[in-house]
Amino acid sequence: MRPMNLTEKIFAAHQVDGGALPQAGEVVTLGIDEAFTQDATGTMCMLQLEAMGVDRVKPLSVNFVDHSMMQQGFRNPDDHEYLRTVSKRLGIIFSPPGTGICHFLNIENFVKPGMTGVGADSHTVNAGGMGAIYFGAGGYDVALAMATGEYRIPMPQVVRVVLEGELREGVMAMDVILKMLSILGVKGGKGKVLEYTGPGAASLSVPERATITNMGAEMGASTSIFPSDERTRAYLESRGRGDDYQPLSADEGAQYAEEIRVDLSELEPLIAIYPSPGNVETVASRAGTKIHQVCVGSCTNSSFENIASFAETLKGKKVAVDTLLYPGSRAVAMQLADSGYLTSLWRSGVRVMENGCGACIGQGGSPISKGVSLRTFNRNFPKRSGTPDAEVHLVSPLVAAASALAGEIAMPDQPVDIRPAEQVDDTAAFVMPVPLAEARQIEVVRGPNIMPLPDFDPLPSRIEGEVMLKLGDNISTDDIQPAGIYLPLRSNVKEYAMQATFNQIDPTFAERCVVVRDAGGHGVLIGRDNYGQGSSREHAALCPRWLGIRAVVVVQFARIHVANLVNFGIVPLTFRDPNDYERVSQGDHVRIDVSDLQGELFLEVGGERIPLEPAFEPKDVEVLQAGGSLPYFKATHRG
Amino acid sequence: MRPMNLTEKIFAAHQVDGGALPQAGEVVTLGIDEAFTQDATGTMCMLQLEAMGVDRVKPLSVNFVDHSMMQQGFRNPDDHEYLRTVSKRLGIIFSPPGTGICHFLNIENFVKPGMTGVGADSHTVNAGGMGAIYFGAGGYDVALAMATGEYRIPMPQVVRVVLEGELREGVMAMDVILKMLSILGVKGGKGKVLEYTGPGAASLSVPERATITNMGAEMGASTSIFPSDERTRAYLESRGRGDDYQPLSADEGAQYAEEIRVDLSELEPLIAIYPSPGNVETVASRAGTKIHQVCVGSCTNSSFENIASFAETLKGKKVAVDTLLYPGSRAVAMQLADSGYLTSLWRSGVRVMENGCGACIGQGGSPISKGVSLRTFNRNFPKRSGTPDAEVHLVSPLVAAASALAGEIAMPDQPVDIRPAEQVDDTAAFVMPVPLAEARQIEVVRGPNIMPLPDFDPLPSRIEGEVMLKLGDNISTDDIQPAGIYLPLRSNVKEYAMQATFNQIDPTFAERCVVVRDAGGHGVLIGRDNYGQGSSREHAALCPRWLGIRAVVVVQFARIHVANLVNFGIVPLTFRDPNDYERVSQGDHVRIDVSDLQGELFLEVGGERIPLEPAFEPKDVEVLQAGGSLPYFKATHRG
Repeated sequence: MRPMNLTEKIFAAHQVDGGALPQAGEVVTLGIDEAFTQDATGTMCMLQLEAMGVDRVKPLSVNFVDHSMMQQGFRNPDDHEYLRTVSKRLGIIFSPPGTGICHFLNIENFVKPGMTGVGADSHTVNAGGMGAIYFGAGGYDVALAMATGEYRIPMPQVVRVVLEGELREGVMAMDVILKMLSILGVKGGKGKVLEYTGPGAASLSVPERATITNMGAEMGASTSIFPSDERTRAYLESRGRGDDYQPLSADEGAQYAEEIRVDLSELEPLIAIYPSPGNVETVASRAGTKIHQVCVGSCTNSSFENIASFAETLKGKKVAVDTLLYPGSRAVAMQLADSGYLTSLWRSGVRVMENGCGACIGQGGSPISKGVSLRTFNRNFPKRSGTPDAEVHLVSPLVAAASALAGEIAMPDQPVDIRPAEQVDDTAAFVMPVPLAEARQIEVVRGPNIMPLPDFDPLPSRIEGEVMLKLGDNISTDDIQPAGIYLPLRSNVKEYAMQATFNQIDPTFAERCVVVRDAGGHGVLIGRDNYGQGSSREHAALCPRWLGIRAVVVVQFARIHVANLVNFGIVPLTFRDPNDYERVSQGDHVRIDVSDLQGELFLEVGGERIPLEPAFEPKDVEVLQAGGSLPYFKATHRG
Repeated sequence: MRPMNLTEKIFAAHQVDGGALPQAGEVVTLGIDEAFTQDATGTMCMLQLEAMGVDRVKPLSVNFVDHSMMQQGFRNPDDHEYLRTVSKRLGIIFSPPGTGICHFLNIENFVKPGMTGVGADSHTVNAGGMGAIYFGAGGYDVALAMATGEYRIPMPQVVRVVLEGELREGVMAMDVILKMLSILGVKGGKGKVLEYTGPGAASLSVPERATITNMGAEMGASTSIFPSDERTRAYLESRGRGDDYQPLSADEGAQYAEEIRVDLSELEPLIAIYPSPGNVETVASRAGTKIHQVCVGSCTNSSFENIASFAETLKGKKVAVDTLLYPGSRAVAMQLADSGYLTSLWRSGVRVMENGCGACIGQGGSPISKGVSLRTFNRNFPKRSGTPDAEVHLVSPLVAAASALAGEIAMPDQPVDIRPAEQVDDTAAFVMPVPLAEARQIEVVRGPNIMPLPDFDPLPSRIEGEVMLKLGDNISTDDIQPAGIYLPLRSNVKEYAMQATFNQIDPTFAERCVVVRDAGGHGVLIGRDNYGQGSSREHAALCPRWLGIRAVVVVQFARIHVANLVNFGIVPLTFRDPNDYERVSQGDHVRIDVSDLQGELFLEVGGERIPLEPAFEPKDVEVLQAGGSLPYFKATHRG
């Protein structure tokens, strides 16, 4: 057998059908050891699991609450209560609000070397720091993984990243991943696994490695992974999990699609300048820039060592700007309290927030208007901070500390020697599954904002109805289904659809759709280029479907949106001749014979037949005919 | 000289004009030792101070940030930055977000026995626990106190409350004030000072006393006060403030309007049942009621001893429901960390929130729909929790602890012995005033949501224009100027007026007003009984004035609203004959000759003259003529 790299080894050990691994780009089905959600994606994921008729999940599954914990009104706590009770019903571990951030808790408690996992959050790849293969995925895919224990993904290319040397004083893991971003850019990881190795990799602790794998997401990488070695063993043993250790690394002579070499000893403190994690510069070149806020923590830089380094720098001094700390887990917060660092942070004027994502996902902690905020987080996209004209730059905890003291961007200029503290076991915080018989008695609590998913009827033989909207180029999922203030409606498809779908383009859209739908007609959308670009938001298909949309006909789709349309039973079609876009208007009565989805398809309008092409793949036909992935799952898995 | 009670002594020592104190109900002007705001009232108070043209405040003044600290978007942090810079400009101490709750910080750091103070928050009376006379007041009154060092108030009656015996195990200061509420009800303190004395009073610590004076607000008392004695000395010395101590008590033979006697040794744990602090029952009678949430802390029950008692009860056990802790100050939070109680609380599953008001004023921490929340706070009014159909009951920290463990209302059933912890000095957190010359150089930072108050032109000789709205009975300040989601607009009169004034009654109101105003006309409002009831919200006068309203003519006013109308230069008038309400309609062109506000006044409409009565007092005439209190202040104080 040919020597394998670490990624291939874990893929091969988990491939469901066995045999040789497929070529890069071809789909492989992996057995999944863990599936998890966080609260912002979890409620919809659970609604889908319930709609699938699942009685109990197959793999180790966890629902974390970390994103929306402000509880401003009933929707937020009702979501938590739904997640708590539905978790118990379905055999899923529940992590209550305040326990910590999913990715950080995952490393501390659940991930073992060699495991595979999917999580309904893009930074799920954080787990690669433990020598595991984890992917971020959409809510439906995670629900499916919970239901079946399997996950389908195109076989990625594997890039070898050789880390040489060791980090100098004042340089941190955050600087390593910022260096990688400066090399690969924000799209350079697409379709790839970044497999770290070399003596530099061996010199990094598990939390340091996780900082690096975490922000692989910012390069678009499928995932990233470090070997499992003595540092892994040391971390697991410190957490009382020595039994979870196994050594794992690439075979000698393993092959890689590419190789990147980074000498850690040559790195200096780096900063990702607003508005992209890819705008990497040296901190030195930006030193002296006035700042207004510093935020430390998040899933990216939240280890005890990270925060203790921050605290040591501040010790006995006062911060010059508003400074907020979001510990990654309550275990870390307890370590900080036990070691005296928490009091020292408070004395320095740091605001200690609840253990959670907080400011990193715009849940509080917004900077002032036109403010400059330095954050040890993983993203600095426009508006993400909640203050549209503020700028967010990304830095390491040591740069954050020096800058918080100076009130301006500053280089770390003092050696930092942290007092070690014993790891804290906070596993008692998790609400563990109960036996199936007991679980079946659990009453799932649904507040008034939590509505079961609607039933999805099968595709009729003929889609016939009205063109509800004719759109131009580059319609994004934000145009289709705005987020922001509508986020609290994500567990309530009806309200979310009625209040928000296309409401910035045409406030009458939803009501017009309901009139057509309730009269027995179907809705059709017409678009031009790059329809469905942007985030992979499932609601941008789910809500239109609830409103009666059964087909979207455009000149070209943004690839990622097509899968969501298929999942929710909307037929994605393109004009064979792009000029035909002009031949159909909003309000036209249209018809599409879909009795044979693999045959010729036409948009019939005003007695004419406009030829169409399928944007779906042959494997999608059965799903579309069933009315979408949920009814398809029920039809094929019910026993 | 006749013997004086403690209240009279402090009044006499502060009366500006000297001489004998007036009879109860007559206005007395007091010199004020301290004036303060919190952020929810502070921005408007500062805008008024700026509009007054004040260069530097006279008494010790503090702007605390404790109410709105979630920073969901730019308005909130911009308010903080405005408060920080305007404080420095005007010579006011600034307490940054995270330092703690105004009333608790005030006791810890600023209040001394014998002082007088006003604060723009109803629980300012908390300071009475230190043997001081403090009043809650409106924003304009606090601005005036900061500008002049004086405050006018009707001389209250003084009630002697004799506390006998000592509290039994499991009974706390919270139970004392709940007992008082069961005796006096929520209106029984009106126009009164509750002066506590007796051996039971001597047995209570300063923070325990403050719990009791704090909730005097719930009985409508003007304020409450305890003597300054050995317990006061002990507290001040523990905080390194021994020099601030002086003994203070009533003279022997002092007279009181009433006397109430409470034997502490007979008290048992009590609970105020939703929806009023006055619905007091025994905990025993409600034991076993299922609960969904527990909240501990707030300005009412936030001392180290309170939270340590809570933590001791929980120690080594897990809470059964979502449990949130809001420490009253960072100093207390540091004591909790240093003494190990913080880690023990975390281990029990308690969520430790930022030091501030939080859930107590509906800033986060809402319970689930139809949930039951037990809180050690001071209010349980409908909707205050943010969850309209949830119920909030008020209890002591020991009842909260026993109930959090049981998941139902439960009696404290174990003796609690707390480990003492040294007091922590966190005074370095305050941003102190700078010398005047330096202060004058300070740039006050105003985010885009912070708009200076408009200029208020003097009253014209004739109000002439349109009846903009004709209203029915019981129009509340919430009807006039909704709060809730519009709260972030409170520093922006224009936006608040345009988006919210009367918008639930007539969404066209603001725009119609602007049309009339900009054409040079005046707006008039017509109402019936009890106009302006509810909270004393200043914006319910300020925003209508911005929209051009110059007179409100009703059958009867809710008393508290009249002062606000006068303050903002709107003439409050009533129909001499209530039946005349029928003779005027919305849209009517009307005229009121106001050239002599002390003469006969008529509403001229359609050639008829409807006789009116002034709802203002003779002392208000000059203020109304000047266009309101702000221009009146400028006209009379400049120079």
